[in-house]
Amino acid sequence: MKCMKYNLAFIGFGNVGQGLARILVDKKNLLKKRHNFEFNVVAVSDIKKGSIFDENGLDLEKLLQLVQKTGTIENYGDGQKGLSSIEIIEKDTADIIIEVTWTNLETGEPGLTHIRKALAAGKHVVTTNKGPIALAYRELMQIAKVHNVFLRFEGTVLSGTPAISLALEDLAGAYVKSVRGIVNGTTNYILTQMEAGASYEEALETAQKLGYAEADPTMDVEAWDPVAKITILANVVMGGDLKVKDVERRGITSITIEDIKAAQREGERIKLIAKAWRENGEIKAKVSPEKVPLTDVLAHIGGTLNALTFDTDVLKEVTTVGRGAGGVEAGYALLSDMLAINRYLGGTR
Amino acid sequence: MKCMKYNLAFIGFGNVGQGLARILVDKKNLLKKRHNFEFNVVAVSDIKKGSIFDENGLDLEKLLQLVQKTGTIENYGDGQKGLSSIEIIEKDTADIIIEVTWTNLETGEPGLTHIRKALAAGKHVVTTNKGPIALAYRELMQIAKVHNVFLRFEGTVLSGTPAISLALEDLAGAYVKSVRGIVNGTTNYILTQMEAGASYEEALETAQKLGYAEADPTMDVEAWDPVAKITILANVVMGGDLKVKDVERRGITSITIEDIKAAQREGERIKLIAKAWRENGEIKAKVSPEKVPLTDVLAHIGGTLNALTFDTDVLKEVTTVGRGAGGVEAGYALLSDMLAINRYLGGTR
Repeated sequence: MKCMKYNLAFIGFGNVGQGLARILVDKKNLLKKRHNFEFNVVAVSDIKKGSIFDENGLDLEKLLQLVQKTGTIENYGDGQKGLSSIEIIEKDTADIIIEVTWTNLETGEPGLTHIRKALAAGKHVVTTNKGPIALAYRELMQIAKVHNVFLRFEGTVLSGTPAISLALEDLAGAYVKSVRGIVNGTTNYILTQMEAGASYEEALETAQKLGYAEADPTMDVEAWDPVAKITILANVVMGGDLKVKDVERRGITSITIEDIKAAQREGERIKLIAKAWRENGEIKAKVSPEKVPLTDVLAHIGGTLNALTFDTDVLKEVTTVGRGAGGVEAGYALLSDMLAINRYLGGTR
Repeated sequence: MKCMKYNLAFIGFGNVGQGLARILVDKKNLLKKRHNFEFNVVAVSDIKKGSIFDENGLDLEKLLQLVQKTGTIENYGDGQKGLSSIEIIEKDTADIIIEVTWTNLETGEPGLTHIRKALAAGKHVVTTNKGPIALAYRELMQIAKVHNVFLRFEGTVLSGTPAISLALEDLAGAYVKSVRGIVNGTTNYILTQMEAGASYEEALETAQKLGYAEADPTMDVEAWDPVAKITILANVVMGGDLKVKDVERRGITSITIEDIKAAQREGERIKLIAKAWRENGEIKAKVSPEKVPLTDVLAHIGGTLNALTFDTDVLKEVTTVGRGAGGVEAGYALLSDMLAINRYLGGTR
């Protein structure tokens, strides 16, 4: 296997981008030695933190320290400042674009434009951005195909815990009849706290204090986030062509302690279940609170943990369990996508 | 991605070989259309059922029907009969050798010789045979490397449920600190039956009636099978160099209903746990019955199900759950290995 060196450009440098940067700094030698993967970061561009470009390579450790101390990368020193994300993407320099801007489930922007332009410019793209993949998977894969580049997005579902690669690669020869699981850690944490006796309001407050829930928790508690994820799974893993609005959606805001206790009395637990299945030749998807019997592994996925069960023809049910959020975890998802690209390009044995 | 066509030779045609053959027949068109994978079966050789070779390709459906009706493939009609496994392996015709003879944990034979010779002859090898991988992983990978071919063995651990590919590919950039799990369905079924009130003897008898346990259940109940699997995991996933005899081993034959009940009273379940971990710079491994708290997902893996938890640096714990045995499941493992080879050779996008 040959050692490949890639020029990387970060588009977005928030929690996830910094998570990947930290891993890349820590594992630099190991990645070269064990995986024949070398890299050079040629650009970092973030709408709030500034933009630095240097085709000779940036010092990632220095950038991390700078952003942690000052909140921006404006005072980096060397390199070219002020290029827009699009300008960086369209330069010839980068081989892989790391798209980690924020998720927008209505327009997919600005990530959608970033990914379109990067693929059309012949660059591989790795992303954790759910918006573009939930909204435009088929279109983007078509652009990737035409330009003979990879588009990978492991981190859009279950963060770094293998889900997309598991389904597309490890389960490649299996036929996925349905997918079902817990794909949002915030709501699972709230429901787990409620089982232990907290009210919805108390549980949400704790989740916010611990950083598991946003100040505005709508995306999680009203189930928009799991809807985006099940849309991705339905389209990517099961061959569907669903839109986010096609997915039946019910969040957890109306769940009471009484509901939780009633379920417990029946030997069940209430979980926010995202699922996609086949019905009369069509792919359907839904997210809603469901009573899950204790005989189901999903009933035992507590706290912020996530899990997905793929029901297949040849293997029956295969379940993957792990963390579904976190900067380092999502950063790892991007690394795992880049290592996959490297294996395919380098010809692993 | 180009469509690749492979000549396949089955060395061994028992439960697992027939499981793969059934999948290949059923999915032939799909594999070509969806995965650009075409095949031609040029040989089937089994010590009990006979040996047929035809470089123009054998009719797999006909072979399956023949072996199911008559127990042999001697009356296939066309093709060359009577070649030994070694002769077939050393012919130029096959591209991939499917090694599915029986597991021998003392010598690894005859599988070890088959795999050595196949790799040295420049052929890719896919296998579910635990013996050669548990005993000679490093040596075999070295031969594969020298001859620039793939050796893949997903089915040696957890059958078709992703375990080896999950660890080596999806978790490639993560550092596995330990592996821990339930990797033997027979003993897990017996322990689950005992929790429901059966004695060890009753549970074993039921397992034998259902085909989950062999007439001589020693390999399972004395934990030789899970020892082989944890040896493979320790060496392949964690970089160890353990021998089967280095692994501390205790089976389930001395577990009583009283032990099970005592554990239940403490809110725990007894599971036969296989684990490998790092200690003072060394890799250690052990298989023994352990009390597992109900807060651990492994406590909820019942019946013949298997599960493995990888504890990693960047993702913390990642768990995979699924069936760990069965002809079709193990057959699928071989297919998934071949599809992986095809993706690497064909340059997936």
